Amino acid sequence: MKEVRVLEIKQSVFADNDMQADKLRQELKEKGVFLLNLMSSPGSGKTTTLMRTIDALKGKIKIGVMEADIDSDVDAKTIALSGAKVIQLHTGGMCHLDAEMTRQGLEGLDTKDVELAILENVGNLVCPAEFDTGASKNAMILSVPEGDDKPLKYPLMFSICDVVLINKIDVMPYFDFDMDKCREYIHMRNPKAKIIPICAKTGEGIEEWTKWLSDEVVNWKEA
Amino acid sequence: MKEVRVLEIKQSVFADNDMQADKLRQELKEKGVFLLNLMSSPGSGKTTTLMRTIDALKGKIKIGVMEADIDSDVDAKTIALSGAKVIQLHTGGMCHLDAEMTRQGLEGLDTKDVELAILENVGNLVCPAEFDTGASKNAMILSVPEGDDKPLKYPLMFSICDVVLINKIDVMPYFDFDMDKCREYIHMRNPKAKIIPICAKTGEGIEEWTKWLSDEVVNWKEA
Repeated sequence: MKEVRVLEIKQSVFADNDMQADKLRQELKEKGVFLLNLMSSPGSGKTTTLMRTIDALKGKIKIGVMEADIDSDVDAKTIALSGAKVIQLHTGGMCHLDAEMTRQGLEGLDTKDVELAILENVGNLVCPAEFDTGASKNAMILSVPEGDDKPLKYPLMFSICDVVLINKIDVMPYFDFDMDKCREYIHMRNPKAKIIPICAKTGEGIEEWTKWLSDEVVNWKEA
Repeated sequence: MKEVRVLEIKQSVFADNDMQADKLRQELKEKGVFLLNLMSSPGSGKTTTLMRTIDALKGKIKIGVMEADIDSDVDAKTIALSGAKVIQLHTGGMCHLDAEMTRQGLEGLDTKDVELAILENVGNLVCPAEFDTGASKNAMILSVPEGDDKPLKYPLMFSICDVVLINKIDVMPYFDFDMDKCREYIHMRNPKAKIIPICAKTGEGIEEWTKWLSDEVVNWKEA
């Protein structure tokens, strides 16, 4: 009995969030703001990848960044160095962002001069996958040191992402990471997922990634 | 108003879990089963560290392992190779284990011939920290590729752990990881935390870690 009740509560939370997310997506479409939800494990390189992304798209797309963390503002300070508009969101212990928290973040950021808003979600492969933020596209980073088996263990995250960046490919010689096996596992979860190996530290693969991203923004505007 | 209501619900969940956890801890004490709750990010090396731990304590302490994952049984299959008693727990999408789920796991494992039960929690630095599992001690692994700033971003996890293993020290030359800074950040969150640098792959530091663990089991039995 207890378990059934918990599931009902959870489902109503999800249904309510899905409604809020669809509403936010519609409003962002009207305002011309493309929202990218970027997820990953702790320490996979979200902030470094964002720095590269902002640099590559400078002068082409106006970017605003929301840095979500339970505590600290180290990431927002780093992003601010790039010159991009940025706001730090503290989640108050929450393990994910939902649509309402994302809406508050966007209001805090102020999107009137933003074409591409990027939400750096809380470092977590589980909970963020369960909550639609209202994003136009979901992206995730899997880093080589985490291992090629992660799509087997965190199925939902891989199934909801439009693009998977495989980061830290520069350290592949030091880890047992099979890129072909990893691609196979990702496509098992999500046959349509775009997979791009990158190294945010050296810049490898960033051109392919930012081309994919800017094409998505253009196609979305024209749709 | 809305926020206050959510917090109340959450608190009653935590209070109920804390009660269940204390009850389970008491029962385990009577049965002579020491429960270790092992937490970390995805891919930090929990399973490899466990394999080394089981090997080092073979013939000294009878170990049983509960492998918690959202999906897949790859970790339980690996642990089974060590000859240790093992059970795979599927959390059904849940991002953490609470005391009741841990109790079910222990019943499934069957602890009558177990002195040290190890729970490999879901790979997640956020939610598992919020739920007392009834463990005698909490341990976590932080791996070098994740970065030395993690205690700043995931404060609760570091504050509740009795011991922090810093894994993958063999790849330190390839990452910007400052061990002194990391120690400082961990002790900022938890001045009493024992910190042990290890490399589960090569075995470095495993002796110090398993000595700490077996001393804890002995002291707990005698207390």
